Amino acid sequence: MQNQQNCNNSKITSFTQLGETLSPPSTPRFGGEEIRVVESMIDIIFPPVPFPSNRIFKALGEEKIRDMVRYHHALLLKTTIKTIFPSNPEALNLAIEKSADFFVEALGGGDVFTSQHGEPHLRMRHFKVPITENDREIWLAMYKKTLKEITFPKELLEEFWNWIEPLSIRMINRRTNMSAIPRHYWHTVKKEF
Amino acid sequence: MQNQQNCNNSKITSFTQLGETLSPPSTPRFGGEEIRVVESMIDIIFPPVPFPSNRIFKALGEEKIRDMVRYHHALLLKTTIKTIFPSNPEALNLAIEKSADFFVEALGGGDVFTSQHGEPHLRMRHFKVPITENDREIWLAMYKKTLKEITFPKELLEEFWNWIEPLSIRMINRRTNMSAIPRHYWHTVKKEF
Repeated sequence: MQNQQNCNNSKITSFTQLGETLSPPSTPRFGGEEIRVVESMIDIIFPPVPFPSNRIFKALGEEKIRDMVRYHHALLLKTTIKTIFPSNPEALNLAIEKSADFFVEALGGGDVFTSQHGEPHLRMRHFKVPITENDREIWLAMYKKTLKEITFPKELLEEFWNWIEPLSIRMINRRTNMSAIPRHYWHTVKKEF
Repeated sequence: MQNQQNCNNSKITSFTQLGETLSPPSTPRFGGEEIRVVESMIDIIFPPVPFPSNRIFKALGEEKIRDMVRYHHALLLKTTIKTIFPSNPEALNLAIEKSADFFVEALGGGDVFTSQHGEPHLRMRHFKVPITENDREIWLAMYKKTLKEITFPKELLEEFWNWIEPLSIRMINRRTNMSAIPRHYWHTVKKEF
């Protein structure tokens, strides 16, 4: 947990570090003679997100980026997280194209998202639907599948993956367990490509 | 945000600190020549929780603590968070008595909770239902109402409040906004008693 080490000089630990940090209590756990302070805790530390350079946009261009986002969404709609998306076909299409606008802009294709939809604020925009740790696993797995199945320049996969992997963690807004959010570092997934 | 200052010497900031820390970008926000790293972020820092001494248990005893928990739940069932509780009356009653077991034990009345139900792990136990920031506001407001309406020793209110106020933050498992979790410090609520 590299990021959590930034806080090691303070009393703040993550829930997931509990096992390492709690020593057996020497005083009664509850209702002793004195007030007993349980220390501060952090739930998720969202890791840094390296936004790509324009190399991917230069290689793919707008239409291929849009096709990638559409392909990804077609896969998502076959999973349990299809419930996150509008069921109305027109609304669904708008949502997918909006997502495509974001990917195009984020990769360097100009302000096609912000000019139409305003600031990205991705975490904020996703608050309206609950997104669990597992939903993020599915989203990311379907992106891996997408990147395998479309024509994506091999030499740019790492830069793309290093962006979407931590980015996807920021959409989680519904915790269902105490575990640290799993990381899927490039060095562990690159052999699959 | 006292707790967040523990991390000020690192690069980790909370989402709610964004306005203070982001300076206008000098390089293109998206898709420039270089990869642009957005720094780590923390969502909630759960503040320390001062578990009470046995003074409250000594003053109230088990039955009055149970009555307090029942009173609180009767109020909760009149609010929007009633959906968190079982609708079946028997299951509801079991849930309320289990909560009472926890309060009795936490206040120093012996292991009536852990002997029947195992470790408290309150945050973990609440994962099965979504609990938003606003649900926590309601829960806490109904506790304030309870403490006003039942016979609770005035001199012990502060110790009790200082426990349940931060404790309630740990049950939040569904984020719906970017704001810092509101604190309701004793010095701001004591005038109401």
